[in-house]
Amino acid sequence: MELLPQELQDVLRLEIPLTGAIGVQVAGYEAGRLTLSAPLAPNVNHKDTAFAGSLTAVATLSGWGLVWMLLREADLPGQIVIQDCSVRYLRPVTRDFAATCNVPGTEAVERFVATFRRRGVARLELRAEIHEAGQLAVELTGRYVAHRVQR
Amino acid sequence: MELLPQELQDVLRLEIPLTGAIGVQVAGYEAGRLTLSAPLAPNVNHKDTAFAGSLTAVATLSGWGLVWMLLREADLPGQIVIQDCSVRYLRPVTRDFAATCNVPGTEAVERFVATFRRRGVARLELRAEIHEAGQLAVELTGRYVAHRVQR
Repeated sequence: MELLPQELQDVLRLEIPLTGAIGVQVAGYEAGRLTLSAPLAPNVNHKDTAFAGSLTAVATLSGWGLVWMLLREADLPGQIVIQDCSVRYLRPVTRDFAATCNVPGTEAVERFVATFRRRGVARLELRAEIHEAGQLAVELTGRYVAHRVQR
Repeated sequence: MELLPQELQDVLRLEIPLTGAIGVQVAGYEAGRLTLSAPLAPNVNHKDTAFAGSLTAVATLSGWGLVWMLLREADLPGQIVIQDCSVRYLRPVTRDFAATCNVPGTEAVERFVATFRRRGVARLELRAEIHEAGQLAVELTGRYVAHRVQR
């Protein structure tokens, strides 16, 4: 794994211990697209599909991780929280799963980074998706806020 | 603990193993109000507050558990899934926390139970809240769907 994905993986495990129980892995980061994966087994529910809480947690983290990547690439130390989100559970997830969050376009990222540099706080709306067998299973839209921290 | 809350506690632990890692406990059920609690320690994040994914999971489960209680009280065997939800994270949660979900009024419950009896499927919109020091910290609105199962 490349340096930045490995660092994000370490940050998640160290700073959010529940990601260990969920089994979250940074599965890939390229072309502004972050993918986190998790096995079904520890996240299974009464219907032998993935527990909604686990799906939402991994989707939420894929957005959080993407903001983390953007700040890291711009060499801006910041703390990131989620402000609100909406989730639609469209189909059951019956196997190991992955949540993918895409950069919302160059302009939105440039505005986010510029606002963060100027004001020390910036917001970004992101959309994360979990697919199964080529079909959209879970869709999360979340607003994330990043705050500057002193090094 | 009374019979029904104890049974729900067992169901959660048995059927959704991640509730063990989160430390979810059925803290109380009375007057149409279900409360689930969880300790901060296994759910902590990088800011020493509760991880958004854990807060959402416990809030989601308080609604799921309330629907489970309503079906159980009406002696209707059903499977419950969440269809969609919206969550607002208003304040950080800095200690052990509890999510409370209230029955949405007698009329809505009667309509839900009658529809379930007639059609074998019914929906219920519920609101769950997590408070800290008397202030609303997390608010979740979710739509749950119950399906009849054969005994």
